Amino acid sequence: MLPSPVLRSLNRRLRISSSPLCSTAGNMAGSVLLGGHEKKHKVTIVGSGNWGSTIAKIVAENTRQHKNLFEEQVQMWVYEEQVQPQKLTSIINNHHENVKYLPGITLPSNIVANPSLVDAVRDSTILIFNLPHQFIGNVCSQIHGHILPYARGISCIKGVNVSDDAVSLFSEWIGDGLNIYVGALSGANIASEIAAEKWSETTVAYDPPPMDSRAPTPRSGSPLPSPGFTVTEVPDGHHRDARGRTSKVRLTGVPSTYPPLDHECFRMLFHRPYFHVQMVSDVAGVSLGGALKNIVALAAGFVDGRGWGDNAKAAIMRIGLMEMVKFGKEFFGETVQSATFTESSAGVADLITSCSGGRNFRCARKAVEKGITVDEVESQDLNGQKLQGTTTAYEVNSFLKARGLDKDYPLFTAVNDILRGTKQVDDIPQLVAAADDG
Amino acid sequence: MLPSPVLRSLNRRLRISSSPLCSTAGNMAGSVLLGGHEKKHKVTIVGSGNWGSTIAKIVAENTRQHKNLFEEQVQMWVYEEQVQPQKLTSIINNHHENVKYLPGITLPSNIVANPSLVDAVRDSTILIFNLPHQFIGNVCSQIHGHILPYARGISCIKGVNVSDDAVSLFSEWIGDGLNIYVGALSGANIASEIAAEKWSETTVAYDPPPMDSRAPTPRSGSPLPSPGFTVTEVPDGHHRDARGRTSKVRLTGVPSTYPPLDHECFRMLFHRPYFHVQMVSDVAGVSLGGALKNIVALAAGFVDGRGWGDNAKAAIMRIGLMEMVKFGKEFFGETVQSATFTESSAGVADLITSCSGGRNFRCARKAVEKGITVDEVESQDLNGQKLQGTTTAYEVNSFLKARGLDKDYPLFTAVNDILRGTKQVDDIPQLVAAADDG
Repeated sequence: MLPSPVLRSLNRRLRISSSPLCSTAGNMAGSVLLGGHEKKHKVTIVGSGNWGSTIAKIVAENTRQHKNLFEEQVQMWVYEEQVQPQKLTSIINNHHENVKYLPGITLPSNIVANPSLVDAVRDSTILIFNLPHQFIGNVCSQIHGHILPYARGISCIKGVNVSDDAVSLFSEWIGDGLNIYVGALSGANIASEIAAEKWSETTVAYDPPPMDSRAPTPRSGSPLPSPGFTVTEVPDGHHRDARGRTSKVRLTGVPSTYPPLDHECFRMLFHRPYFHVQMVSDVAGVSLGGALKNIVALAAGFVDGRGWGDNAKAAIMRIGLMEMVKFGKEFFGETVQSATFTESSAGVADLITSCSGGRNFRCARKAVEKGITVDEVESQDLNGQKLQGTTTAYEVNSFLKARGLDKDYPLFTAVNDILRGTKQVDDIPQLVAAADDG
Repeated sequence: MLPSPVLRSLNRRLRISSSPLCSTAGNMAGSVLLGGHEKKHKVTIVGSGNWGSTIAKIVAENTRQHKNLFEEQVQMWVYEEQVQPQKLTSIINNHHENVKYLPGITLPSNIVANPSLVDAVRDSTILIFNLPHQFIGNVCSQIHGHILPYARGISCIKGVNVSDDAVSLFSEWIGDGLNIYVGALSGANIASEIAAEKWSETTVAYDPPPMDSRAPTPRSGSPLPSPGFTVTEVPDGHHRDARGRTSKVRLTGVPSTYPPLDHECFRMLFHRPYFHVQMVSDVAGVSLGGALKNIVALAAGFVDGRGWGDNAKAAIMRIGLMEMVKFGKEFFGETVQSATFTESSAGVADLITSCSGGRNFRCARKAVEKGITVDEVESQDLNGQKLQGTTTAYEVNSFLKARGLDKDYPLFTAVNDILRGTKQVDDIPQLVAAADDG
């Protein structure tokens, strides 16, 4: 063996500065926990399906563990159903199991299933939205005016709203509807695996609005805060949202009688030994990751169905990831970070999971294997339901076409064209290569 | 549905500047191809195994297609063997099939199998090394002094050399041994899939040495270049290598009578409709990707064998990718780019492939499923061969421990400790969380 020169830089121990994604909210014994606060955060889960009940379990375990920060009892709004011979809420409250949507999993006894949406959200500072996106509008209308003005939200709903005119986030939709700030939680998170406490990771994106930065003490001479809370209004009622956009939502600051609602606090709320949380500020990136990955998963299914093997599937995932980054950067400006896509659980990890065994992947693969359309697979296997990926592929393509940019996203465009029957799976290499050469 | 505000930035069409990885070597009809050159590049493949024969097929298809750049005939050094009733070189040259190492694939007839190593490399400007790394030292000793002084190399050999003292690249080892500059090719590349022309991608890293930058014309009064080539010596015979390190290798510039040996030229040599090439300059990142991924693949196999599902496997891959980036940045300084790991075929895509069905992944999974050690799986299933991942895990751990840095790489360290039996697979979540909290 020829001698290899010793690397000169070895002893320098050059440490890279931690990336935004590497630095989670820090040490459990952080300083905020040391100061006592008059009030604790009350938490409500809005939704109680498979994923909603799983998140409720996690959150209730944490409110029990961190009683200095949170009220132990967690409200969970349950759309009431009769599960013979009882009501679903009674079963959950008496037997601590959501027998309909998360059977076989014991829920913490500090979860209170509440059939009244308005009652469930009353006086909560933290609202966690975990329900099908079709219900967002209705839920917001019902609870508007019945929540604390300084409540904060986290949306666990994957996806984005895409029309020809705009791409908007579910977190914004909820935030705008309720006049509150809403962040997002997304990751490689198959609910049943997490409910069974199989280890996984998630990403929580939260970019606290400016008025939540704590002023030290009220200035002498200024009116004392109302008992229990301080309302900090922003000039003109404007605030900067996740995209750096100025919104007309009139936000109210979280009173200083509560523990600060910052990254550390949200990490305490969601982090479990089996559910590791990365805190980031990029709400748009986290939300886009959970939507756009479904287009890529269809493409991965196509090439896998064609029998092209693991090389081709990995290539599709890489190219898809690059188009996700490009889309985020192009339409969500400077607030989106590439690292959210390439380094977070909501990005690359969720993409990997979706391209391994997700529904979009499986249906696309089956369509190619059987020589039928994805439409036909949807009809045969999904009881008329549509895949998220097909809808997103059509919507994103229409949005891009409206701007003359579809050629800049050859993989997204190829998926749309294959779904519509104007291109074939065999065209994919040439289509993505043409973009390379451009 | 509540109205969503129209995204203000939409019409700005803000394009992200192409990342180093997005910009491949550009258009096929690029300017370098328009100028005629006296000489063409002669190409030799050093090695003729499964992967070597596959690369020879690709290269020979391209030398036939781009006759303005390359001599059509490609030399392939074949370690001579008797394959009854003929010699392997005779079979390849007469029947255009490597019946021993790549059976069933027709090779282009412009590949010349040559049993003489020295004869095969003679007069070649491009040497492609594709053989087991154990043979590097011996091959270099044999051909040293028999190659063109201005030859350039590409190493297709995956892995790196790790000792307690240093991590060094195979490309450097070859380059130092032969006094030439050597780049690297790596990617999500399973040879049999590529030989069957199933579509895939690869990454070619090449950082041309300074003296290869073409001087426009010899200055008036200066001696004319020797017929056929110009030798451009660097001051003191030093040159900057892939890590920004100054090496004592005495390089000779490629004569200007040849087409420039730049990214565009190498892309022409390797890019096929079924084998897409990204050109980058980060030789160290590309080489490290192909080595460190094997440690991660073992970890992915461990959690998969434990039945933790796709969430956990994706989490391992994400964490592993972050440790790969960190390792590259820490020990290969500023020349390594995060994007090589997170965006290239040699990084994230190769990691995905290896964690899908690669040998390290499968053996680790089997060990956990059967409740035996990886050592035992190696003995039972690999005829005494060792996995690349286990060797790399041990070597990297020893290297890190020698610097007191093993705790900074909790996943790499966990894999080492699990292989050695001092930690359990069930400890992984806690081990990687501890690093998060630190």
